[in-house]
Amino acid sequence: MHQMSQTTATSSQTDGTDRMVRLRASMSARARAIEGMIDRLLPRVEGGEARLIDAMRYATLGGGKRLRGYLVAEVASLFRAGAEAADRVAASVEMLHAYSLVHDDLPAMDDDDLRRGQPSTHRKFDEATAILAGDALQTMSFDILASPLTHDSADVRINLVRALADASGAAGMVGGQMIDMEGEGRALSLEEVARLHALKTGCLIRYSAEAGAILGQASDDVRKRISAYGRDLGAAFQIADDVLDATASAEELGKTAGKDEAAGKSTYVALLGVDGAAKEARRVAEQAESHIDIFGPEADRLRDLVHYVVERRN
Amino acid sequence: MHQMSQTTATSSQTDGTDRMVRLRASMSARARAIEGMIDRLLPRVEGGEARLIDAMRYATLGGGKRLRGYLVAEVASLFRAGAEAADRVAASVEMLHAYSLVHDDLPAMDDDDLRRGQPSTHRKFDEATAILAGDALQTMSFDILASPLTHDSADVRINLVRALADASGAAGMVGGQMIDMEGEGRALSLEEVARLHALKTGCLIRYSAEAGAILGQASDDVRKRISAYGRDLGAAFQIADDVLDATASAEELGKTAGKDEAAGKSTYVALLGVDGAAKEARRVAEQAESHIDIFGPEADRLRDLVHYVVERRN
Repeated sequence: MHQMSQTTATSSQTDGTDRMVRLRASMSARARAIEGMIDRLLPRVEGGEARLIDAMRYATLGGGKRLRGYLVAEVASLFRAGAEAADRVAASVEMLHAYSLVHDDLPAMDDDDLRRGQPSTHRKFDEATAILAGDALQTMSFDILASPLTHDSADVRINLVRALADASGAAGMVGGQMIDMEGEGRALSLEEVARLHALKTGCLIRYSAEAGAILGQASDDVRKRISAYGRDLGAAFQIADDVLDATASAEELGKTAGKDEAAGKSTYVALLGVDGAAKEARRVAEQAESHIDIFGPEADRLRDLVHYVVERRN
Repeated sequence: MHQMSQTTATSSQTDGTDRMVRLRASMSARARAIEGMIDRLLPRVEGGEARLIDAMRYATLGGGKRLRGYLVAEVASLFRAGAEAADRVAASVEMLHAYSLVHDDLPAMDDDDLRRGQPSTHRKFDEATAILAGDALQTMSFDILASPLTHDSADVRINLVRALADASGAAGMVGGQMIDMEGEGRALSLEEVARLHALKTGCLIRYSAEAGAILGQASDDVRKRISAYGRDLGAAFQIADDVLDATASAEELGKTAGKDEAAGKSTYVALLGVDGAAKEARRVAEQAESHIDIFGPEADRLRDLVHYVVERRN
């Protein structure tokens, strides 16, 4: 009995590792496809706008995990939506995400000189160009969603536009950034930290899952489940991020470690300790999985993604 | 004969003055309606986002001529589109315009402390809040267009979103701002100045006219004429603006006069002289009127508006 259970454990562990290897390969392949799509959507130009387009390309083509774009594409494929459409919507959300990073890094905001180990956009170009590049990336992310090339149905396109505006505006991502700036140096409650993250990073991750369901023209009920999955996946991602910031080395992270504590930011780790925060990440991750229990093995990638976000080391 | 023609001239002049008085009254009434709509679309909130919403309100509710919103509403009424829908689209374009002014005034951009005689948004609040308020205003302008409250037809809404994205992104307004920053201190040709203005301010004025035609579900041919009218109206407006900057007093303008020359900017006045630029403004204005010659007296307001933009003193 003991030996058998050990065998099972080992086999399940191997299986888990295999699945994680396959997930990473799938994410890398999708990231390359999204990168290619951004490259095509944002071709270089001549003349006075060249610098603007170059800055937009610099901010969006720098690699990265493309978690948001991957979510769009994986959920869309669950509903057999077209891969080209999914890659366009994935490129759109990655542009939206990039705009927020470019503006977040500005001296008046987080004042970050580095992004993924490279000079941030305002350091590589200048502040004015970074402000304008962020502005134009936001516009472009809506433009892509609204284009007939993305979907035949105007209803699908308008639903994508509305969902992105909801997730990224004053009642979403930008609202969260404002709360984050306001809260600096002040001790936040667990509830406040959860709300801050739900807005600042959660909304766009939730949108990414939802966008796949919109593209796939899922029923309202299924769209709500996918949206709840995305919401909890985003929350688990952020809690795990706090744990990583406190425990991983700078080398693993590719950015300064322990930055949150140094900035006096209220984090899950500050409120719950490393172990408590890690436990909370797992609890929320399980909750994320529960929302997609209506699906069979076709949703295994989305389940693996939940494990990935809480177990990653960078 | 002499006396008769004099009578006619006086009557026509009186008629012209009357029409200008009526136009100004119509613009004021519409500006109040648009202000009311923005106020309702952007209600105050409590909590960490309060500062963001306050800054968005500050940037959008400061009065002004509301030329863009007026254009939307006047063109929409030509096609008997609903006034509520027109006011929503007018509020949306005024928010988009306000976002561009907030970001333009930032220290890294034009570094303006005043806007319409009041502290600019980053002076009244701070730079981070101004960046975020501009970002959220852009999002909101798309959100309003995409809302079913604006129009029943998803096609109409998606066409509005696409037209606004075209006019305001890297190939429109923001592209123009980039060219403007790049061209500072460098002598531009007349052609380059025309292109700069067509992008920086012209696109959004052209869009405003076009948006009224989209709301009114005008035919493609009519929409193109309205769009051409808006394009030339915007060009005339900008040339007249150059003339005003060179000839009006600071008191008349409500802002620093002679700023263009001091900044070494290439303007129509620098290239053509005051008289030459004034003549060019009238030529482009006549061209604007010619595009709407298919309409009868119902388009008289749009004709008066052409005269208004070249004759205004502020």
